[in-house]
Formats: sequence, structure tokens, C-alpha cells
Amino acid sequence: MVKRLRINTPGQGLHEITEHVCRVVYESDCSEGLCTVFIRHTSASLTIQENADPSARRDLERWLQRLVPEDDSLYTHTTEGPDDMPAHIKAILTDVSLSIPIIDGALALGTWQGLYVWEHRKGAHAREVVVHISKST
Amino acid sequence: MVKRLRINTPGQGLHEITEHVCRVVYESDCSEGLCTVFIRHTSASLTIQENADPSARRDLERWLQRLVPEDDSLYTHTTEGPDDMPAHIKAILTDVSLSIPIIDGALALGTWQGLYVWEHRKGAHAREVVVHISKST
Amino acid sequence: MVKRLRINTPGQGLHEITEHVCRVVYESDCSEGLCTVFIRHTSASLTIQENADPSARRDLERWLQRLVPEDDSLYTHTTEGPDDMPAHIKAILTDVSLSIPIIDGALALGTWQGLYVWEHRKGAHAREVVVHISKST
Repeated sequence: MVKRLRINTPGQGLHEITEHVCRVVYESDCSEGLCTVFIRHTSASLTIQENADPSARRDLERWLQRLVPEDDSLYTHTTEGPDDMPAHIKAILTDVSLSIPIIDGALALGTWQGLYVWEHRKGAHAREVVVHISKST
Repeated sequence: MVKRLRINTPGQGLHEITEHVCRVVYESDCSEGLCTVFIRHTSASLTIQENADPSARRDLERWLQRLVPEDDSLYTHTTEGPDDMPAHIKAILTDVSLSIPIIDGALALGTWQGLYVWEHRKGAHAREVVVHISKST
Repeated sequence: MVKRLRINTPGQGLHEITEHVCRVVYESDCSEGLCTVFIRHTSASLTIQENADPSARRDLERWLQRLVPEDDSLYTHTTEGPDDMPAHIKAILTDVSLSIPIIDGALALGTWQGLYVWEHRKGAHAREVVVHISKST
């Protein structure tokens, strides 16, 4: 089973999609299997991170901004704006696909794990995420 | 088929779990398929790296410690100790899930590839890893 | 279905393999499912990135070279040459496995996404990539 999700991101940062993906798992009626999440972009990515204290996510965002700043004379790919090349670099350092086992009809996420779209561009974007569910045979 | 593994890590560094995962593949009686390994934590992660010379793994650990040091005034998420926020950052730079094809009943790892839990916290931890096997139909 | 590909890389940089993988998907006669790509090496890796403007890929290569330079006194694993330890580090920061949903018989890649083997060693290498296709049941 495959389901396409449209995720509206308001700008740079981690945007939680755990509930969206859980709903797809629930609708699939899969009791045991594998859930794969794939993002169809190169300037936004996926990650699984702490879903409890928001300060952890803010620090992740600030740390990655400092590692990959906008004003870097190395960049030659600048036609799409100053936030475009840093966005590509941040995307390759994080994830384009993630696979999570399904046990007893639910994602086998740890207690403190949430699933996020990481928007690396400054503006609001409509991002496409594909969720694939394979049932154990 | 899904199997939960409990991995006891003695502290920061790469802890090999290749044999544990191979045993799950063997017990699954799967001749061709896909093995997905997922870690249920946000301050430890997974990686596949050189299993021959231990100096490569030590350098990986030291390099990542230097890139993401403990004493960094950027961090605001500090309530869980000075090694917690660096652990989250190291986790997002490495892997939470990995998928390895199964061919002729064995993981299709390269000659020099080993599978590791990368512990990013200083203390000993009991980590949960979920192994999912899907057989080709 | 599992297929092994041999990819000849001419040296450091991003080498596109999208067409090779698309051909495997086409030959599999899979209309809906999941395609997993796995590289059997620890000094080359996989990534999905912008397939349009080559300047984006050149900047990615140059940025990663600067983050992980050859002449770094931290390295103790030096017996296989000055480009070996940086190659291992670059590999753990990018991907060893990637999973892409298959919809209507084709990879669900975004418009601007290409699939690449990222060669981190200086010399030409023959790299082994394994493609696994699982069909939805």
C-alpha cells in the first residue's frame, strides 16, 4: 500500500508528521510489517528525533544552521537564492528515506521518537511525502 | 518477521551487532529478502562501517566528538547532562534505520562491512534494536 | 527480486545511477512496491540529490571535502592512504542504503531527484550496488 501526503511547512525547522504517518499505518490494517517514508525533495529532508522537549529541536536547527551557513564563498550554485545550496547540503546530511517496523498494528517508535519533515528553505513550501506499507507474509 | 534485540552498550563508541542480526536472518529461514534494522532511541544510532582495523572506528568516534563537542555555548537543551544534546546531533548525522538485502540466506554485506550501534551517551545503556525481515515473494 | 550492479567510478564525486536502477525496476515488472538500494562499501556511499544543475553537485563535493580534509592530524588509520580515513567519515555522513517507493511501475522520485553513488576515494573503483525490489501484496 502506498499513500501520498502533502505537508505544508511554514519555513525552516522540524515539522512533526508522526500523526500523519500513524494514520496511514492504521488505515492500512497492517498488524506486522514495515513502514517506509520517502520525501520527494532535495532541499527538505526527514529525521527521527526527540519529541518531548522542543529545546532539543531548536538546538538541532541552530547547530545545523551554524555548520552550513548561508554566506559561504564556497557556493557557486546560487541562482535559486542564498538558502538553496545550504538546503541541499543539510538534506544530504540528514535523511531522504526512513523505514520503521510495524508491530501489533503500530509503528515501533521509541517512547521519545517523533518523525519530522526538516524544512531547509526559508519560505513556506508544500512538500510531498510518500508512505509505503509492506505487510509481513 | 520482527525480532526485538536488547543491546547493552558500555559507553560512547561503536558496538558491533553484526552477529546478532545475522542470527535473526538465519532463524527467519529467509533465502531472499530484505533485512531492516531500526534503533528506538534518539541519543544512539546505527551505522555500517569498516570491521577490520579498529583504528578506523576509533578515528570515526574522535572525529565526530570533535565536530560535536560537549562544551558548546549554542546548546540550550542541557537538563539531561552535557553529553545529551551532542548525542542528539550525532544521531541525526548517522542512521536510525538501515536496510540490507538478503541473498542466499545471508546479509549482502560487503567483505569489510560491519553493522554497529553507535552509543553517543557516556554511560552504559540498554538499547532496543528492532530487526524486520521481509521475504521475497 | 535482487539484482547486483557493478558501477565503475572514475574517482571522487557524485556518479549518477538513476537509469541503472530504473532499468531494474522496469525488468522486475513491479507496479507497486519498494525499491531498496544498498552499497557494499565503506569508502563510497549513496545519496539522492538535485539532478538538474551540475553546480549543486560540485558544491556538495567541495563542501564535504572541506569538512573532511585529507591532512588532519586526528587520523591514526592511515595505512591505506591519505584519502581512506576521510572516505570512511564521508560515508557515515551520507547513506549506505536508500528505499524508494514504486508507484505505477516507476520509482516515486521527485522531479529534481537523481540517485548517485558518491565515490570518496581518489582513484577509479569498481563498486557493487545491490538493488532489492519488493512487490506490494
